[in-house]
Amino acid sequence: MENIQIRLPDGTIKVVQSGSTPSDIALSISEGLLRNSIAAKVNDVLVDLETPMTSDSNVELITSRSEESHEILLHSTAHLMAQAVKDLYPDAKITIGPALKNQFYYDFDLEEILNEESLIRIEERMKEISKSDLKIERQIFSRSDASDLFQSMGEDYKVDIIARIDSNEHISAYRQGDFIDLCRGPHVPSTKKIKHFKLLSVSGAYWRSDEKNKMLKRIYGTSFFDKKELSAYLEMLEEAKKRDHRKLGKELEIFTFDDEIGPGLPLWLPNGAVMVDELENLAKETERNAGYVRVRTPHLTKGELYEKSGHLEHYQKDMYPAMDIDGTKYYVKPMNCPHHHKIYGSKPRSYRNLPVRLAEYGTCYRYEKSGQLFGLMRVRSMQMNDAHIYCTPSQFKDEFLAVCKMYTYYFDIFGIEKFQMRLSVHSEEGLGEKYVNEPELWKQTEAAVREALIFGNIDFVESKGEAAFYGPKIDVQVWSAIGKEFTLATNQVDFAIPARFGLTYTNERGEEETPLCIHRAPLSTHERFIGFLIEHFAGDFPLWISPIQVIILPVSEKYFEYCTSVYQKLFDAGIRVEMDDRNEKVGAKIRDAELKKIPVMLILGEKEQNDGSASVRRRHEGDIGMYKVDDLLNDLVQEIKNKTRRNISNPAL
Amino acid sequence: MENIQIRLPDGTIKVVQSGSTPSDIALSISEGLLRNSIAAKVNDVLVDLETPMTSDSNVELITSRSEESHEILLHSTAHLMAQAVKDLYPDAKITIGPALKNQFYYDFDLEEILNEESLIRIEERMKEISKSDLKIERQIFSRSDASDLFQSMGEDYKVDIIARIDSNEHISAYRQGDFIDLCRGPHVPSTKKIKHFKLLSVSGAYWRSDEKNKMLKRIYGTSFFDKKELSAYLEMLEEAKKRDHRKLGKELEIFTFDDEIGPGLPLWLPNGAVMVDELENLAKETERNAGYVRVRTPHLTKGELYEKSGHLEHYQKDMYPAMDIDGTKYYVKPMNCPHHHKIYGSKPRSYRNLPVRLAEYGTCYRYEKSGQLFGLMRVRSMQMNDAHIYCTPSQFKDEFLAVCKMYTYYFDIFGIEKFQMRLSVHSEEGLGEKYVNEPELWKQTEAAVREALIFGNIDFVESKGEAAFYGPKIDVQVWSAIGKEFTLATNQVDFAIPARFGLTYTNERGEEETPLCIHRAPLSTHERFIGFLIEHFAGDFPLWISPIQVIILPVSEKYFEYCTSVYQKLFDAGIRVEMDDRNEKVGAKIRDAELKKIPVMLILGEKEQNDGSASVRRRHEGDIGMYKVDDLLNDLVQEIKNKTRRNISNPAL
Repeated sequence: MENIQIRLPDGTIKVVQSGSTPSDIALSISEGLLRNSIAAKVNDVLVDLETPMTSDSNVELITSRSEESHEILLHSTAHLMAQAVKDLYPDAKITIGPALKNQFYYDFDLEEILNEESLIRIEERMKEISKSDLKIERQIFSRSDASDLFQSMGEDYKVDIIARIDSNEHISAYRQGDFIDLCRGPHVPSTKKIKHFKLLSVSGAYWRSDEKNKMLKRIYGTSFFDKKELSAYLEMLEEAKKRDHRKLGKELEIFTFDDEIGPGLPLWLPNGAVMVDELENLAKETERNAGYVRVRTPHLTKGELYEKSGHLEHYQKDMYPAMDIDGTKYYVKPMNCPHHHKIYGSKPRSYRNLPVRLAEYGTCYRYEKSGQLFGLMRVRSMQMNDAHIYCTPSQFKDEFLAVCKMYTYYFDIFGIEKFQMRLSVHSEEGLGEKYVNEPELWKQTEAAVREALIFGNIDFVESKGEAAFYGPKIDVQVWSAIGKEFTLATNQVDFAIPARFGLTYTNERGEEETPLCIHRAPLSTHERFIGFLIEHFAGDFPLWISPIQVIILPVSEKYFEYCTSVYQKLFDAGIRVEMDDRNEKVGAKIRDAELKKIPVMLILGEKEQNDGSASVRRRHEGDIGMYKVDDLLNDLVQEIKNKTRRNISNPAL
Repeated sequence: MENIQIRLPDGTIKVVQSGSTPSDIALSISEGLLRNSIAAKVNDVLVDLETPMTSDSNVELITSRSEESHEILLHSTAHLMAQAVKDLYPDAKITIGPALKNQFYYDFDLEEILNEESLIRIEERMKEISKSDLKIERQIFSRSDASDLFQSMGEDYKVDIIARIDSNEHISAYRQGDFIDLCRGPHVPSTKKIKHFKLLSVSGAYWRSDEKNKMLKRIYGTSFFDKKELSAYLEMLEEAKKRDHRKLGKELEIFTFDDEIGPGLPLWLPNGAVMVDELENLAKETERNAGYVRVRTPHLTKGELYEKSGHLEHYQKDMYPAMDIDGTKYYVKPMNCPHHHKIYGSKPRSYRNLPVRLAEYGTCYRYEKSGQLFGLMRVRSMQMNDAHIYCTPSQFKDEFLAVCKMYTYYFDIFGIEKFQMRLSVHSEEGLGEKYVNEPELWKQTEAAVREALIFGNIDFVESKGEAAFYGPKIDVQVWSAIGKEFTLATNQVDFAIPARFGLTYTNERGEEETPLCIHRAPLSTHERFIGFLIEHFAGDFPLWISPIQVIILPVSEKYFEYCTSVYQKLFDAGIRVEMDDRNEKVGAKIRDAELKKIPVMLILGEKEQNDGSASVRRRHEGDIGMYKVDDLLNDLVQEIKNKTRRNISNPAL
């Protein structure tokens, strides 16, 4: 038998027989390594440990510490769950079961009603299968054999999936005991590798997300290599449930939805409108200092504009249908960029006036399927902290990095400690469809962005296929105080559309050139950002953005006059203050103010009145003593001005 | 012959023969009065001087000093012009020619191209006819006779008009010499009463404002009883032309329109966005002090909401067509009220929490025919200074008067000295169509509004038929610095819709009651208000709302560093400051800054640098001397804070 050379990540070369597998390589190093390995990367492709190698290869063993391992475990746990479900409900038909971030799900066509008890039973069965240490094996079929096999098992959905696969392709499946599922893999080598898991919830989902199809039962679960990690994650989920922005948003009267207005179209209640205003004030101030000017554009626009911009070609499925007005098609705008391009183009520009930075809190409307809508996170109307920066190529790097810096400036203010920039580039397959068909400009612009990020010393990961249709895009993921992940800000480079709009500037030599355009939204949409803030702070907002900042609690009616004078003093200083003048015990008033998460309570009675003072309770700190009203006012004004974070439930903030 | 009693306005009773006319009455008093009379009011109905009276009547003679006289003169001048046109262009077909405020027009179907010279010729001919003192006589026809008559003259449009009149109605026409026109009248008794007139412009207009019909030629003119009044009016028009917000709006880069976005959908350029922001800040501060809270609502809404609110029944022709989303009809909102009702209704309310005052700068979309669009005055997208006040009946008067007071507060700030409240009430004919069909509630609410106005000592006029569909409405007319009239604010009382939305509050006795709702928009829409401000101030805005407040003009490059330090000082104090660092003479920079109407120019050179000073030029004041930069900064900040009006072209302001 022939020998082949295996190069390991540390540069070691091992000469082994052709047909050796990554598990052979692992064993040749140590039994412990084999025990810890769950898959391998051979020439950068993830494969099972038992995949034979027949030519010289680079091999990297994937252990639980590898970045890629969690997804493999999650997906293997989905198979394990499907096997358990089939054991318990033999009539269930399996469909698909992908891994998500920290979770997986599997959709079943199943008549039985599933409840929490069912999940416990399924979990028990999963544990039994895990213990029985079934080998998980890859098998290859021709398309017709695969189809026959799943047909014979009554797995109609799998047959449907196979029918859509190219007829010449070979099809892989994974078998563990008597359970077999279509899958590209890789998987962990045995069920006993899957130990620390938990089923989380069950919900409905349409086959292929299409409302016309049958409603399936979707079971969500999670799985970790380590027991502690699982506990920590479940704890985080528990805390996240308490912080759910839909629940807190209702309790704190921040926003509401109404059936007669429509799904995905939030109404901002007075408390929410305060937060929106504060965010806008912050953005206005920050953008003014960064040399932006503000504009305002309508929400309704002729289709012509979106033909020119390419939205109708590349983005129509995310847009609302047209309205016919005087024989012309009009759309509600899904993005502000074409409008800003029009403003840029409304007068001649010289290199001396560039960069031009146009900012707007524009409300955009995007079509989301009603099943995709989720609280403030996925909505149909969204007011974006939008801006477009028109610059020369030589200005690009500075402008781009200034935008990145603005992100971190905001993150500091909100105590967002963990974040990650993800550079999404185009995919060649998408050219002309999902992306404008300019292969050279794509490469050039992506290189410029990469270079700027590296120059700016900014950590980033790169991923393919999530770019905007007009250029590469940086999504910024942030993690909330309890480690829940959100995608907030975006920063996009547009090399395509300014030319379509005939946008130019006169360069130093008197020639007309096309500017680059940076699209950026560091504060995301009001909807998503405030949704995030609710969960991040668990509703305990820093004073400056708290809807109600101070509540005055009179000890009795006798002090109403004094209370009113204190109220007026705070009100005149711009503080959002309320007074609880109900005929209730002060203890009850404190409890109610706690429920509203009001950061500062002032309890005013005889002593305070005589002394021109207030007894102050601060949230999560309790009674902090008596203060002269003027001193307190001064402190509060400073705290608001400095955007201090205090009285919030997570001390890490 | 029988005698009848004529009662004059001063209470005098005259006994005259039946068949006497108002001109007989005038003559019986004095020849001078007859000479000055142009029409009469008999039992409150306007009639010609030669109308015979056959029963006891109240008679008021209309002279040039009467309120009603100007409209009669204008309309008579329109007839005179039509006669002149027919004399000069016998093929012209006449259509309609109503009186407007201070102007009239007449639309002709006419092949010839009309230019300024044609207007002069027509005017000359009008003067000749005026001098020839033709009697203007009313004639009555049956519908068929009238039709035959105008048919025989080839006046097809008149025939068309007659065809739409109820067949039993008698039709009046007015003859002067060989010219006859359909008309309700009244008219001045002779062409010689029409002396001081001027034709102003010619434009195109569609027959019945319908783009599918033929384009007619519309000639505008004006007419006064007094030569001086005519001159003053023409002067005002001349000044108004210079102040035209469309012209100044473009020159000062406040707003623009774009064909690819659509007519009536303004784009606010950075200078305009500044003004919008300042207005919003003013409204936010004023409304905060007046106990309003702010909300935000989407622009897109299910049709269901507008069925409930009655908009689809009463207001659909002003709305955009529906979009079909997932099988449901959605509309862009024409008003914010239904959304605010939803917010009011989102939680239980008690009389203790009322009034609830919900404010929003909501953008509404209303369909206007493209021919009706006019600059910022008639647009399709409008951002309104909107609010809805929900109150108990006993709170109504105070709330309503507080709104009226807010108007005058704003008018003071903007130097609006002349204004008039016009109470529009329903008309019985409109019940069930234009107006909700609640005759009793209409009367009751109108009475309450009238009572509040009288109680508040507020001057108002009353007019029929312009109410909102849900209740009586107060439109506020204001006059700009040069006496041009605008309709700005509105204040409406809604007695109908809160009940349809099931809105309630718990009263003192624990019962559920329906609140009244006041709709109000004292700052109108951004579009109309800023259009007004441009014309009112001729672009010379008070410092606080000036898009650019200060411009720094370096005498030469040598002082750039000093200029930059002054710039930064002003910028940091929140002042909107620019620096003209072009390589130009300071004189040229001053001229350019004048063109931009920048209120404050700082000229900085050697002397200023050595002294930490600035030489200050103020618009319309010129050089006002040298100031220490810190003192100047302090003055400017105060001027902005106090919203002082200074440096504006009209000293009356």
